[in-house]
Amino acid sequence: MLDKTMRINYLFDFYQSLLTPKQKNYMFLYYLDDYSLGEIAEQYEVSRQAVYDNIKRTEAMLEEYEEKLGLFSKSQERDQLLKELKKLIGDNSEEISAIIDRLDKME
Amino acid sequence: MLDKTMRINYLFDFYQSLLTPKQKNYMFLYYLDDYSLGEIAEQYEVSRQAVYDNIKRTEAMLEEYEEKLGLFSKSQERDQLLKELKKLIGDNSEEISAIIDRLDKME
Repeated sequence: MLDKTMRINYLFDFYQSLLTPKQKNYMFLYYLDDYSLGEIAEQYEVSRQAVYDNIKRTEAMLEEYEEKLGLFSKSQERDQLLKELKKLIGDNSEEISAIIDRLDKME
Repeated sequence: MLDKTMRINYLFDFYQSLLTPKQKNYMFLYYLDDYSLGEIAEQYEVSRQAVYDNIKRTEAMLEEYEEKLGLFSKSQERDQLLKELKKLIGDNSEEISAIIDRLDKME
């Protein structure tokens, strides 16, 4: 099981386009820039509780999107398959490897 | 360019989990079962206009999700790459072909 921060980071990567600008900003500051709730509250001139509630709601939304669309789990499954494919094919064909790399970079 | 009905069908496939049960039902009846707006209105005991508005809003939502997440366009790109891969590899390895098939069926 992934540690929670790491999992939220991945889910954020996949679903951030579905969040509001404010949700994105809070999540970005809290999870990627490692701001404290108090620092975010100060910057946005809102209460610490308001920031906390917003972030908790956003986390729940991210988990809900993952439950519905499963982009993160599909991407892990795909990565695993591509890894196996690479191992089987080896370095025998530049052309084939290039395609696998492009598939790998798609998400 | 895909014909509109076909495109909406594809988008519905990818994003139906994000719709409400009512939206899903209307879309299903209209696009997959080929009911008329009047027939759906009768079945749900609402006005024809209400059904029409709901379906138009849902179509707009599907396009918005595609704009944000691009699952349909990514899936088309991936299909193309997997097709190329299959052509290059041919029927030389059952094991490799099995993995490509699994990748192909993922979405």
